[in-house]
Amino acid sequence: MSVRRQLKLGAMLHGVGSSTSAWRHPDASADASVNFELYKKWVTKAEAGKLDLVFIADGLYINEKSIPHFLNRFEPLTILSALAGVSQHIGLVGTLSTSYSEPFTVARQFGSLDTISGGRAGWNIVTSPLEGSALNYGKKEHPDHDLRYRIATEFIEVARGLWDSWEDDAFVRDKASGVFFDPAKLHTLNHQGEFFSVKGPLNIARSRQGHPVIFQAGSSEVGKNYAAKHADAIFTGHETLEDAVSFYRDVKKRAATFGRNPDNVLVFPGISPIIGSTEEEAERKYQETASLVSAEDALRYLGRYFEHHDFSQYELDAPFPELGDLGRNSFQSTTDRIKQNAKEKGLTLREAALQTATPRSGFIGTPEQVADKLQQWFEQGGADGFMIGSAVPNALEQFIDQVVPILQQRGLFRTEYESDTLRGNLGLPIPKNRYVEQKDGVPSEDHQTSGV
Amino acid sequence: MSVRRQLKLGAMLHGVGSSTSAWRHPDASADASVNFELYKKWVTKAEAGKLDLVFIADGLYINEKSIPHFLNRFEPLTILSALAGVSQHIGLVGTLSTSYSEPFTVARQFGSLDTISGGRAGWNIVTSPLEGSALNYGKKEHPDHDLRYRIATEFIEVARGLWDSWEDDAFVRDKASGVFFDPAKLHTLNHQGEFFSVKGPLNIARSRQGHPVIFQAGSSEVGKNYAAKHADAIFTGHETLEDAVSFYRDVKKRAATFGRNPDNVLVFPGISPIIGSTEEEAERKYQETASLVSAEDALRYLGRYFEHHDFSQYELDAPFPELGDLGRNSFQSTTDRIKQNAKEKGLTLREAALQTATPRSGFIGTPEQVADKLQQWFEQGGADGFMIGSAVPNALEQFIDQVVPILQQRGLFRTEYESDTLRGNLGLPIPKNRYVEQKDGVPSEDHQTSGV
Ligand SMILES: Cc1cc2nc3c(=O)[nH]c(=O)nc-3n(C[C@H](O)[C@H](O)[C@H](O)COP(=O)(O)O)c2cc1C
Ligand SMILES: Cc1cc2nc3c(=O)[nH]c(=O)nc-3n(C[C@H](O)[C@H](O)[C@H](O)COP(=O)(O)O)c2cc1C
Repeated sequence: MSVRRQLKLGAMLHGVGSSTSAWRHPDASADASVNFELYKKWVTKAEAGKLDLVFIADGLYINEKSIPHFLNRFEPLTILSALAGVSQHIGLVGTLSTSYSEPFTVARQFGSLDTISGGRAGWNIVTSPLEGSALNYGKKEHPDHDLRYRIATEFIEVARGLWDSWEDDAFVRDKASGVFFDPAKLHTLNHQGEFFSVKGPLNIARSRQGHPVIFQAGSSEVGKNYAAKHADAIFTGHETLEDAVSFYRDVKKRAATFGRNPDNVLVFPGISPIIGSTEEEAERKYQETASLVSAEDALRYLGRYFEHHDFSQYELDAPFPELGDLGRNSFQSTTDRIKQNAKEKGLTLREAALQTATPRSGFIGTPEQVADKLQQWFEQGGADGFMIGSAVPNALEQFIDQVVPILQQRGLFRTEYESDTLRGNLGLPIPKNRYVEQKDGVPSEDHQTSGV
Repeated sequence: MSVRRQLKLGAMLHGVGSSTSAWRHPDASADASVNFELYKKWVTKAEAGKLDLVFIADGLYINEKSIPHFLNRFEPLTILSALAGVSQHIGLVGTLSTSYSEPFTVARQFGSLDTISGGRAGWNIVTSPLEGSALNYGKKEHPDHDLRYRIATEFIEVARGLWDSWEDDAFVRDKASGVFFDPAKLHTLNHQGEFFSVKGPLNIARSRQGHPVIFQAGSSEVGKNYAAKHADAIFTGHETLEDAVSFYRDVKKRAATFGRNPDNVLVFPGISPIIGSTEEEAERKYQETASLVSAEDALRYLGRYFEHHDFSQYELDAPFPELGDLGRNSFQSTTDRIKQNAKEKGLTLREAALQTATPRSGFIGTPEQVADKLQQWFEQGGADGFMIGSAVPNALEQFIDQVVPILQQRGLFRTEYESDTLRGNLGLPIPKNRYVEQKDGVPSEDHQTSGV
C-alpha cells in the first residue's frame, strides 16, 4: 500500500498579525506581540491540530513609522525556546538574519534550541531587508542585496560545519575508564573565509535531527538559488495559483540542477485564510478588517518595503509613482512585484497601497471552500505545505478547528504525528555528518550541494 | 515590627557540576549538561524550595582539553527561556560575555526573556577569560583584560539605554482613535561611542521589573569597580569567611564611593555544600568525589585557568612552578589567588592542582552544620546570599530538602515568594527610565552611577 503524500502546515505566530491595523479589531488582543500566555495558547492549539510547526518572523530595525506589531515583540530564539518547554511534538522555526550576527553564536543558539526541544528547531534564514539595521549594529552601510546573499552562503557553511563538530557517537561517557569522549570524533572546523573566520569546535553536539531544519525566505533570483542550494524549505508568498506553480517548478528545477533531490526542498506559500460559516460571512470579516486600515496607514505600510520611503508626498489618486530602483536593495522580490502589479493593472497609489496593506488572499470562504483551495494548490503543484497567517482575530483557531479536520478526512493531512522531530514530520532526511562522510568516502546530497 | 533581613539563594544549574570528574560518580547523570528533563526537574525543585534564582554559567571556547561539562552544554539564553515556560516565580540568570556580542542583540534577547518570564530575567556580565574565544569570532586577538572591562562598560550603558527606548505607558493601544503608541514616549538612543554605535530604538519594551537584574562575575580590581558601579549583584568565590568579609566590605565601600546605596549591590559567594546525615558521611562523600579526579585531570583543569597552559611539563611533586604573568589576562583574580595560595602554603604542583580541581569548601557536614555556616557568613557580613553549586550528585536536591527548611525555621529565608519578579524577590529597586528622569529632573541612583 502506497502512502499518500500529505501536505504540511505551519502556523505563523505573529502577535495580532502583520497587517498594520489588525490590533484595532474589537476582538484583537492589542498586546498580543508581547503576551506570552497567548503564545502558549497558540502553540498548544497548533499542536493539538497536529501542525508541523510554528513560525516566528523577525526584524532588526524599527522607527516611529513601523507598523504596530513590529515595534514591540518577542525575539525569535527566546520565544521559541520558551515554547519548547511547553510543547512536545511541534516544530519551532524562527527567523534570524545572517547579515548582522555571528555564526558561532547563531549555530550555538539554534543547536541548543534543537537539543532542548528534542530535535524540533528550524531556522528561517533571511538577509535583512531593512537598511536601518546597519545603524543598530555599528555598520556604516547595509550590505548590498547580492552581497548579503554571499555572506549568507558562507554563514550557512560555517554553521553546518560547527553543527558537525561532534559525531553522534563521540560521547562515550565511560565512568569506569574515565573516557568522556573519543577525540577522533571531535572535529575542529578551522574555517577561514571571505567574511568569517571561525575555529570551532562548537560546544554543543548535534540533536536527534542532525541539524535544525533550514528555511529560507526571499524570492529574488539570488534568493531562489540560495534556497535551492541550501534550504530544506522555502517560505514564499503568491497571489495566484499560477504564480505559485511557476515558482514551485522553478525552485524544484533549480534544486535538481544543483544535484539535489527536489523533494527535499519543500515549498510553503504563506496564506491568511479567513473563514466564515457562509461565504458572505467570510467576506464580511475581510471587509471589516480592511476597513480598519486608513489610507495613511496603508502608505506607511507600503513605505516600509521601499526603504521607509515617504509616499505621502504623492497624489493619492494619481497613478502609482515611478520609483526607479527604489526597494531593490531591500525587499527586492516584493517591491518588484508591487511595481509590476501596479503597472499591469494601472493602479493608483491608493489602490496599490491598500492592496499591499490588506491583500485579498483567495483563501476566504467556508471551511470547505478553504480546504478545496488548499487541496487545489497542493495537488496542482503550487505547494508542499502552507504557512498559516492570521489576517483576522482567531483565524488560526478557526483554521485548526474547522479546516484541518476536513483535510484530515480527505487524507491530505496527518491525524497523528509521525515523528517527534521536525525533520521526521516534514519527511526530510537527517543530514549526514560531513566528517563521517569523509571517512566513509560517500558524500551525502547535503554536501554535494552545500559546497556549491 | 521590623522585618528581618533574609538571605538570598541561587541554584547553579551546571550539568553534572563544574568539577572535572563529577560525571564519573556512580549516581551522576553523565549527560546532564544536555538533558532538558533534568533542567526542568531542577528548576521545579528550586522553585518549590522558594529559591530566588537559577543560574547558568557559560564559555565561548572549547578544545579537546576542556573539562567534560564544558564540551557539550546548553547555551544560556535558550535554556533559560525554555525554563521560563515551565516556572512561575523563580529568577532566570544567565552568563553572557560583552567581549564577543552585539549590544542590540543582547539587549533584545534579555529583554525578550524578561518579558516572556514576567520580569524574572538576570544577566551575569562577564568579559570572557578564554583567549581562544577570539578565534571563534574572527578576531585576531583576545582583547586585554582591562580593555575588556572598558568594552563591558560601554556595553552595559548601551543596553540600559536600549531597554529604556519605550516609557512604561508609551503603548496607548486605543482602538477607537487608532493611536497605538505615544511618540513622545519613544526614545531613540543614537549612541556613538568608542566601541559601539547603536541607533535604536529597541523593538521590545521594558518588562515589569524595568531592566533585567545585572550580575557580574570577576573579582580583579577593575572587576570589582565594574560591579560596584554597574551591577545589582556580584557572583564571587571565597575559601574563608575572612576573605568573604573583606571582599564584601570592599565592594560595598566602592559602591558607596560611586554614590550608590550599598544595599543595592548584593554579594553572592558561590559555595558547593556537601550534606550527610553525619559529619563523617558528608566527609566520605567529599573524599569519594575527590578520588575520581586523577592528577592528570587536575593538571588539565588547572591549565584552563592559565590560558590552557600545559602543566604536564613540570615535575608533579616539585614546588608549584613560577609562572610570571601567565593567567593575568584571562582569569586574573582566580590565577592570582592560586599562585598566592601555593606560595604562602608552599604547595607542590600536585597539591595545588588537586586543591583547585576539588576545592574543599567549608560547607561540608550535616544540614545543621551547613545552615550554621551559611548563617555565620550571612550575619558576619560575608554574604547577602549564596549561589549553590553541586560538587556531588543530588547536592542541590539535598540542600533544598534539608538545609532550606532549617534556614526557614530560623527566619533566615522566605517561606513564600514576596514577589513574582526577580527584583521584587531580591529587594532591588526598579531602575527608573532615564528619559522619564530627564523630564522629571530627578536622576535616580542608577543613572548617577551608570554614567561614571
Ligand atoms: C514570505 C517571506 C517572509 C519573509 N520573512 C522575513 C522575516 O521574518 N524577516 C526578515 O527580515 N525578512 C523576511 N523576509 C525578507 C527576505 O528574507 C529578504 O530579506 C528580502 O525579501 C530580500 O530578499 P529577496 O529579494 O530575495 O526577496 C521575508 C520574505 C518573504 C518572501
Ligand atoms: C564566581 C565567578 C564565576 C564566573 N563565571 C563565569 C562564567 O560563567 N563564564 C565566563 O566566561 N567567565 C566567568 N567568570 C570569569 C570572569 O567573568 C572573568 O572573565 C574573569 O574572571 C576575569 O575577570 P577578573 O580578573 O575580574 O576575575 C567567573 C568568575 C567568577 C569569579
